[in-house]
Amino acid sequence: MTRIAAVQFEPQFGEPDQNLNSSLRLLGEAANRGCEVAVLPELCISGYMFRDRQEAVALSSTLEESSACRSWARLAQDSGLTIVGGLTERSGGALYNSAVIVDASGIRGVYRKLHLWDRENVIFDRGDLGVPVFDTAVGRICALICYDGWFPETYRLGALAGADLVCIPTNWVPIPGQVAGMPAMATYLVMAMAHVNGLSAVAANRTGVERGQPFVGQSLIVNYTGWPVAGPASDSEPELLIADVDFAAGKASRQWNEFNHPLRDRRDDAYTLTTGLEQRA
Amino acid sequence: MTRIAAVQFEPQFGEPDQNLNSSLRLLGEAANRGCEVAVLPELCISGYMFRDRQEAVALSSTLEESSACRSWARLAQDSGLTIVGGLTERSGGALYNSAVIVDASGIRGVYRKLHLWDRENVIFDRGDLGVPVFDTAVGRICALICYDGWFPETYRLGALAGADLVCIPTNWVPIPGQVAGMPAMATYLVMAMAHVNGLSAVAANRTGVERGQPFVGQSLIVNYTGWPVAGPASDSEPELLIADVDFAAGKASRQWNEFNHPLRDRRDDAYTLTTGLEQRA
Repeated sequence: MTRIAAVQFEPQFGEPDQNLNSSLRLLGEAANRGCEVAVLPELCISGYMFRDRQEAVALSSTLEESSACRSWARLAQDSGLTIVGGLTERSGGALYNSAVIVDASGIRGVYRKLHLWDRENVIFDRGDLGVPVFDTAVGRICALICYDGWFPETYRLGALAGADLVCIPTNWVPIPGQVAGMPAMATYLVMAMAHVNGLSAVAANRTGVERGQPFVGQSLIVNYTGWPVAGPASDSEPELLIADVDFAAGKASRQWNEFNHPLRDRRDDAYTLTTGLEQRA
Repeated sequence: MTRIAAVQFEPQFGEPDQNLNSSLRLLGEAANRGCEVAVLPELCISGYMFRDRQEAVALSSTLEESSACRSWARLAQDSGLTIVGGLTERSGGALYNSAVIVDASGIRGVYRKLHLWDRENVIFDRGDLGVPVFDTAVGRICALICYDGWFPETYRLGALAGADLVCIPTNWVPIPGQVAGMPAMATYLVMAMAHVNGLSAVAANRTGVERGQPFVGQSLIVNYTGWPVAGPASDSEPELLIADVDFAAGKASRQWNEFNHPLRDRRDDAYTLTTGLEQRA
């Protein structure tokens, strides 16, 4: 069993020191409660609602110079915690909406958001690293960020590359069509994608309103069945979600029965575009 | 707006005439209530729990010889209804778990299940037609059958080929991990896949217990938001679900905002397998 935390909190725009301190306090609490992996929200050091690229660049740093990465690595060394957190990454002339994976060895890996949402398209560069899977002390981890989760391709790539756990720093916002009183559609996406891949997943969303943009909380941890083992959390209040997940059972569970396995049953030979017009013309 | 029906009923094993009559009665009711498209369950003429391939062959026919196809086509001519129904299709020496699309012009198309579940693997041949999309009087339709829905690739192919509606004849059964008192995970999969593709979908499941195998009903119709507009239906009783869906609004809805469109935002360039070991070695 691996104990996992989703750290739902409310970063303050343009207050990196304060946000880093908030993250360290909550990560410390997760470590004290026996967690081995903890996930923080998207862009949780800078905040999210940049006016333009220039403002985002001013709140970014390279991974090497990032005080957040340094502090998280120190906490990882002290506690054994593996941390997945969202931040603005500068790299040469590029700017990425990234998730770093930090463990006792330091920065273990980075994921750069592939699918940019709305005005992120005029602020960030599109991710250029695919969906890498990292071997960590606790297992094989990949990261996705927010709108990436609308692309089933991403979870599938993580599963096919052997991931045990998908970590999702996110800044989910309200979207049209949401049915009032029901969990956010985003939470169903996590459940569905975990289920069809036999993958565990943890999504850490933020709360609060930033420059007029509300966020919807509802962080959750699901196991390989797709069902939540913790959350969805509050839609408005910070919350530390903790649950135990069994990675080995997850991989074993993929043998649904004598014949079926969700990854081996894929029909790559048949996944080509065809239309009825061609077929019965 | 297009009025759609999911015909949830309880086929009797090995009673094709009785099952066809049941389907015609319910399709007639759907037509009388103004429906333009109606979906029937998987293998709804023969039943599902074949002992072996030989028994399935005995209950199969070619599409040309199928009395079900003939009767559905007659009803389509009389009513204008487009019908999507699951049946055992023999073709040369092959046997498929198929869905036929029948309209006033006759058999408009056929889909052959790509992903066979459990003992279907010793009974049927695997589908060989990809995910075709058919132009019908009411719009562009594709079909998927039951376990196909565990493969997000299938919905994506339908969406990319221009489908307005995914029709899903199914025989959903209880699966491990299901949380008691919650809708079947299968219903969340339909919601999630419709949502991420901006596609409407209708799943028609059967009810009852056949040779010891229970089925879970819960047919549903979802629009392009992913939220149900009808259902989930009863988990045990026959039910005719009807709802209106706006295909044009569905396609327009895909322009989420100035920058985003779920099909155009795909990162084919990035959907290759990479691992962190390669990246940071």
